[in-house]
Amino acid sequence: MLTLSDFKEARKVLAGVILDTDLIYSKRFSKATGNQIYLKPENMQVTGAYKIRGAYYKISTLSEEERARGLVTASAGNHAQGVAYAAQAAGVPATIVMPTTTPLVKVNNTKEYGAKVILRGESFDDAAALVEELRQEQGLTYIHPFNDLTVATGQGTIAYEIFQDLPDVDVILVPIGGGGLAAGVATLAKLLNPNVRVVGVEPSGAAGMQASIAAGKVVSLETVDTIADGVAVKTPGDLVFPYIQNNVDEILTIDDSALVEAFLDMMEQHKMIVENAGLLTVAALRHLDCKGKNVVPVLSGGNMDVITISSLVQHGLIYRGRVFTFSVQLPDRPGELQRVAEILTRENGNIIKLEHNQFVNINRQSGVELRVTLEAFGHAHRKDILEAMREAGYHVKEEETGGFYS
Amino acid sequence: MLTLSDFKEARKVLAGVILDTDLIYSKRFSKATGNQIYLKPENMQVTGAYKIRGAYYKISTLSEEERARGLVTASAGNHAQGVAYAAQAAGVPATIVMPTTTPLVKVNNTKEYGAKVILRGESFDDAAALVEELRQEQGLTYIHPFNDLTVATGQGTIAYEIFQDLPDVDVILVPIGGGGLAAGVATLAKLLNPNVRVVGVEPSGAAGMQASIAAGKVVSLETVDTIADGVAVKTPGDLVFPYIQNNVDEILTIDDSALVEAFLDMMEQHKMIVENAGLLTVAALRHLDCKGKNVVPVLSGGNMDVITISSLVQHGLIYRGRVFTFSVQLPDRPGELQRVAEILTRENGNIIKLEHNQFVNINRQSGVELRVTLEAFGHAHRKDILEAMREAGYHVKEEETGGFYS
Repeated sequence: MLTLSDFKEARKVLAGVILDTDLIYSKRFSKATGNQIYLKPENMQVTGAYKIRGAYYKISTLSEEERARGLVTASAGNHAQGVAYAAQAAGVPATIVMPTTTPLVKVNNTKEYGAKVILRGESFDDAAALVEELRQEQGLTYIHPFNDLTVATGQGTIAYEIFQDLPDVDVILVPIGGGGLAAGVATLAKLLNPNVRVVGVEPSGAAGMQASIAAGKVVSLETVDTIADGVAVKTPGDLVFPYIQNNVDEILTIDDSALVEAFLDMMEQHKMIVENAGLLTVAALRHLDCKGKNVVPVLSGGNMDVITISSLVQHGLIYRGRVFTFSVQLPDRPGELQRVAEILTRENGNIIKLEHNQFVNINRQSGVELRVTLEAFGHAHRKDILEAMREAGYHVKEEETGGFYS
Repeated sequence: MLTLSDFKEARKVLAGVILDTDLIYSKRFSKATGNQIYLKPENMQVTGAYKIRGAYYKISTLSEEERARGLVTASAGNHAQGVAYAAQAAGVPATIVMPTTTPLVKVNNTKEYGAKVILRGESFDDAAALVEELRQEQGLTYIHPFNDLTVATGQGTIAYEIFQDLPDVDVILVPIGGGGLAAGVATLAKLLNPNVRVVGVEPSGAAGMQASIAAGKVVSLETVDTIADGVAVKTPGDLVFPYIQNNVDEILTIDDSALVEAFLDMMEQHKMIVENAGLLTVAALRHLDCKGKNVVPVLSGGNMDVITISSLVQHGLIYRGRVFTFSVQLPDRPGELQRVAEILTRENGNIIKLEHNQFVNINRQSGVELRVTLEAFGHAHRKDILEAMREAGYHVKEEETGGFYS
């Protein structure tokens, strides 16, 4: 049971261990949505995500004997770092099984938090199988990432801090993966004020909770497909499900492409790195059907591998009109490249990459394909360059992907 | 004159306009340096940089008539946004001249802060020439980005907040460009506690203040060469220079390559975007010759264009061993590519890019060059892959740049 007295207890236990992440007022999002938007930056939390709350509170409820045997879990993500840090803070040994494909920086962070790390298998399922072995053989206590009411109670303490900073909060947006965070936050929020509206947000490619709510019981997705790896869960937790049924008013779904835009907004406007799962609530802001309300999107975490950041930034360059690729077919004779180069120079287009391929066409009047990737100052400049090419008589074809890597 | 009473006045004027950016304790940097490191995150300041402090305080000291005529300045950077925002907050019209090469997002931000933006010329000098015209023709008041004691007084209020959060601060690190920020912060810090040590930090490629201090007077650099565009100043301000002479204890210089590492650290460990100029003080932490001290690096700003972020992230992938490129010469006969592909598959190396060029060598035993760009999980994995290639008898040549764009 998620009760007010348990939430209070969790809050007391967590004091001094976690940061009270202060709400950040967003002038930009407030203006864009007609509401007052306050970000709850759990990306700035110790370990870079809210997960430490549930893990540490869970440990505090274990018996001396359970602690002495130690903890175990499997995760390549925030849960690994949260459990490792919480275990170290509580002086309890922890073993974290991570897939061998986990980026080194995440492995190192988990080790630096004092946990024993075992690299096993290529996927989460392989790692989870080893966890089961370790539980049975060594009696280690498994800390489930979401389907555990004690863990969910810890996560829910976020709602306390939101009300403390903003007692007249109207709407809370919370990401949903397995449902632990959402169950905790929604339940405590409704206990503190039954009129507050709680909106859950899932990726369109992993909307297992929305499907379960519609079915009236927990159902499993056959596949998940989203860049928001932190919430890419096939089967929501059955223990937390009833709390979501009762306390989450609505579930919105967000496409991956909207996360790229939200990533850029957070970086450019708020100078913060928020991971894809944490960006769900930011992307959902534009789908709110209210005005003049105090709205708090929970940014669940900020742990993002540099290769994922790189991919988002590359897409961002295209979104912002800073990089684009076009191709044009030229007559196969000397002097043609120079004509194009002159136009690009005049229009101040900076060439990133150039491919010049002869014999793409049997007709020598359009026998050469020139493929150009350019840097521009933004969409207005990009359009000017393409227009100048067209005015000079070229049939220009722009590539939708921006062609940055191709 | 920079006096305590002026600093106090500036602090009063700025209350409610700027954020008191709270110090952020860095466990990571503290552990790495043996000191207690507290970051002063002016990247999270309104407009994304400290510049609003000086601009707003300066405006407060203008006469009614000067205000009515309006402000003017030239900048493609933080000063543009700071002046625009401050002018709007004070209800004073502002004209900002920006080079035509300014990225659209910075132009838009400046416009959204209510300023009139004029795009002129390709460089800062072209824009500055127009500012001079507007001053003479329309009597607009010029807000200098650094060489103005009133502006420097506003910037110095940062020291107040540092002492408020951390009264026993021992060392303050502050970036130096023209010297306005450093003069203000160092002077107020010494007024509050003469024993505090103030360390200025400049890029190696634009160390005009260090040269001036050595010469005992302001000298100009012939050229500047650094990715830290916010502090790429040829001639430090002569009005602020004496305050730096008297109050800055030491100036360190930092190479651009160290800024890439600092950028990654801030992103991965603190989930924050800090611009290159603001990273100088982070990079300088490892050059401190003290232990056990309370140290505050001032992160001056976080406004970074997405194309600059992209460049830093690409370098970061190479630093982290997540992307690397090698080339190998193969015999020119069928089946050779498959042999290499088998090794890469076995070692779990993910191919990003492949170039296969025949006829690089007249000797058909090494007539084909294969150039492979791979994604790996980190340096250990990168080394494993290269080792496996060598064990199979290949002469592998790794490219130092990572070859990501080439």
